[in-house]
Amino acid sequence: MSAPDYGHAFALWRDQAPEWHAYTHHPFVEGLRSGTLPRANFLHYLRQDYIFLIHFARAWALAAAKAETLAEIQAASGIVQALAHVEMPLHVQICAAEGIDATALEATEEAPANLAYTRYVLEAGYSGDFLDLMAALAPCVLGYGEIGARLDGSGGPYADWINTYAGDEYQALCRDVGALIDQALAHRLGPDWAGLPRAQVLAQRFAIATRLEVGFWQMGLDGS
Amino acid sequence: MSAPDYGHAFALWRDQAPEWHAYTHHPFVEGLRSGTLPRANFLHYLRQDYIFLIHFARAWALAAAKAETLAEIQAASGIVQALAHVEMPLHVQICAAEGIDATALEATEEAPANLAYTRYVLEAGYSGDFLDLMAALAPCVLGYGEIGARLDGSGGPYADWINTYAGDEYQALCRDVGALIDQALAHRLGPDWAGLPRAQVLAQRFAIATRLEVGFWQMGLDGS
Amino acid sequence: MSAPDYGHAFALWRDQAPEWHAYTHHPFVEGLRSGTLPRANFLHYLRQDYIFLIHFARAWALAAAKAETLAEIQAASGIVQALAHVEMPLHVQICAAEGIDATALEATEEAPANLAYTRYVLEAGYSGDFLDLMAALAPCVLGYGEIGARLDGSGGPYADWINTYAGDEYQALCRDVGALIDQALAHRLGPDWAGLPRAQVLAQRFAIATRLEVGFWQMGLDGS
Amino acid sequence: MSAPDYGHAFALWRDQAPEWHAYTHHPFVEGLRSGTLPRANFLHYLRQDYIFLIHFARAWALAAAKAETLAEIQAASGIVQALAHVEMPLHVQICAAEGIDATALEATEEAPANLAYTRYVLEAGYSGDFLDLMAALAPCVLGYGEIGARLDGSGGPYADWINTYAGDEYQALCRDVGALIDQALAHRLGPDWAGLPRAQVLAQRFAIATRLEVGFWQMGLDGS
Repeated sequence: MSAPDYGHAFALWRDQAPEWHAYTHHPFVEGLRSGTLPRANFLHYLRQDYIFLIHFARAWALAAAKAETLAEIQAASGIVQALAHVEMPLHVQICAAEGIDATALEATEEAPANLAYTRYVLEAGYSGDFLDLMAALAPCVLGYGEIGARLDGSGGPYADWINTYAGDEYQALCRDVGALIDQALAHRLGPDWAGLPRAQVLAQRFAIATRLEVGFWQMGLDGS
Repeated sequence: MSAPDYGHAFALWRDQAPEWHAYTHHPFVEGLRSGTLPRANFLHYLRQDYIFLIHFARAWALAAAKAETLAEIQAASGIVQALAHVEMPLHVQICAAEGIDATALEATEEAPANLAYTRYVLEAGYSGDFLDLMAALAPCVLGYGEIGARLDGSGGPYADWINTYAGDEYQALCRDVGALIDQALAHRLGPDWAGLPRAQVLAQRFAIATRLEVGFWQMGLDGS
Repeated sequence: MSAPDYGHAFALWRDQAPEWHAYTHHPFVEGLRSGTLPRANFLHYLRQDYIFLIHFARAWALAAAKAETLAEIQAASGIVQALAHVEMPLHVQICAAEGIDATALEATEEAPANLAYTRYVLEAGYSGDFLDLMAALAPCVLGYGEIGARLDGSGGPYADWINTYAGDEYQALCRDVGALIDQALAHRLGPDWAGLPRAQVLAQRFAIATRLEVGFWQMGLDGS
Repeated sequence: MSAPDYGHAFALWRDQAPEWHAYTHHPFVEGLRSGTLPRANFLHYLRQDYIFLIHFARAWALAAAKAETLAEIQAASGIVQALAHVEMPLHVQICAAEGIDATALEATEEAPANLAYTRYVLEAGYSGDFLDLMAALAPCVLGYGEIGARLDGSGGPYADWINTYAGDEYQALCRDVGALIDQALAHRLGPDWAGLPRAQVLAQRFAIATRLEVGFWQMGLDGS
């Protein structure tokens, strides 16, 4: 199956990330697809994902702080708003349905793979600019979109999870974020940005974040 | 008239800011109240205020990035969302009604007093933590609330402006922000924070931001 | 007199900064040259300059934190080291000789023009990347070099000040910083960076910082 | 053997870090002591440590940027200076003697455990303030001091490494950094800081950084 069309930068960066396949076809993902992923691992992942979402929302907020145009502020703040006021309360609800109450959720100790990924993204944003942050955030946002699209229709015990990322709403978000990235690159570096040394640094940020995503799935698989 | 009740920290900081009265009773403010402020000055202020709002939204986004609890992320991101998706489009509309179109608005050269204030706030946030940012943001958010409350019912050509800040919605926002600040202080520094050296630094941030607000009104009065 | 050769970026940015002449030929500077600047103004400037140097050292430290190569870390940290361990103690000494002791120096209230400039530079660095910081720092470092070179040999009561910036050591620093900037640009944006939109943002940062330098001299002239 | 005296905060934080013993008595450390650590693992560690030192220098530079007093700027910038102009060139030299030339060193791919630790420290500094950065840096600086003191006189193939950290110069640095931390805490939070909620956050930063140090040793042991 070919990659979904989330824009130009995504296509380029994806091709330069050696572990993209290892990330999008990780045994954890295959377990979601086939339904053979043990529930305990899924719940371990969900608990860590809650902590992840907090830092992910913080990273998108930092993107809004580092934006250069009103359109960038609006796009980034819209995502923070959705994360903080919709996704995260929803996550709390899903976990509650699985028997993990809010107190247990907030008491979860952050796994090293979680620390590694979230702090990498935030530090990229603080040390660099809006583009560094986008390149570090893209593997998560767009990779989940690609995984969702590939797993669409798998059914099974993880159908809800799959449908969230395969659904129209999330796929539209992926196209919007892809376009935001392409516009941000053109706005700052012009139409021929891909040939600049800066592009290599951004591709590397994407590749490292992809590597850390592999670690995140692996943490889900190892934990329980 | 006594100060409105926007919480404990505001009451303390306000008392320690030597230029609070100069800010809240600035001739620009009195001109809004009496209606004698020349329209050209008001429009100059509006144009600068648009640029101000961009950086103000960025600063609240930074607050969300520096938040330590989900409640802080939600509060800060809600404000960014309101600024980017409601306030700023509204501002564009108001300016358009005054004959300043979006192109003219975005081409406005940022006045030194505007630069001084916005960058002070953002730098306080980047160099310090969530509390530094709150102390630097408070004079703007809460000072406009106090001014609005005092000018309520003045009528005249600036009644719309006055009603925005005197209105229930904005006054509720001020109480919420005051409570956010008090909770953030207690969460980090405990109930007796006011006696800590840290409290002096925060009071000074508030005082400096207040001084820079005086400069912002003065810029409105001087420009045209 | 032509501009000193501090590299390619400086030459370009200088040409695009409308207030470069107003900065380098400000009445305060002319007063230093002719010796007619009142002593009280010079001392006012010196006191503010002490506070400025603290933030200037912080900004160069931020440059080291945002560096991408060992050479950049070394260059930036060498400047912080020189500022913190040589320049600032020297400044304390000069002020002491003028009757301003360390306590008085540290109790100096920061002037708005000082706040405006230093926070602009630091915020440019925090919000942007190494290049934004260089563009915002350059008018100070290299402008003083150009002023020093032009005033060289003027003699008079401010000969010591002039000689500091006209001297070989400072002129060599200016060439080094100019080369650091050119290399940092080429390293990130390639040899044709000047045609990229990014270059316009950097030129604007330089222009705004130049404008704020004019404000700094004016503060020296107004204060006492 | 009791802990070395590196000040009050270190003593408190060390006691609250569950993995302090796992860090300071890690099999990698015991291998250095007994001399049984395979050379290949040591070289793997050295290569990663070079990358670590770059980010470590950046973190201390960030500390100088976030300093509130001249003494703090001087202390932090002195460490950056020593790292960038002495430690890192020395490291290049040691690696060269082991057959790893500068090109190979710079081409080293950063291990996940290295990414995890360094970005955690930098992000702590960017998101928080000077104290957060100190708490995240302390396990490295002071832990190596404690390890060096404990392994002093072990001799064997790693005697040079041991002597670096056991030596008077490094031990004095540890006492200085410990005092810097204690003073920074008292300066901001007063003499009774240990009872504030803020102290718990800082202790947790120290504990997490300690956990990530365990991961760093483990990476040395696993790699080759």
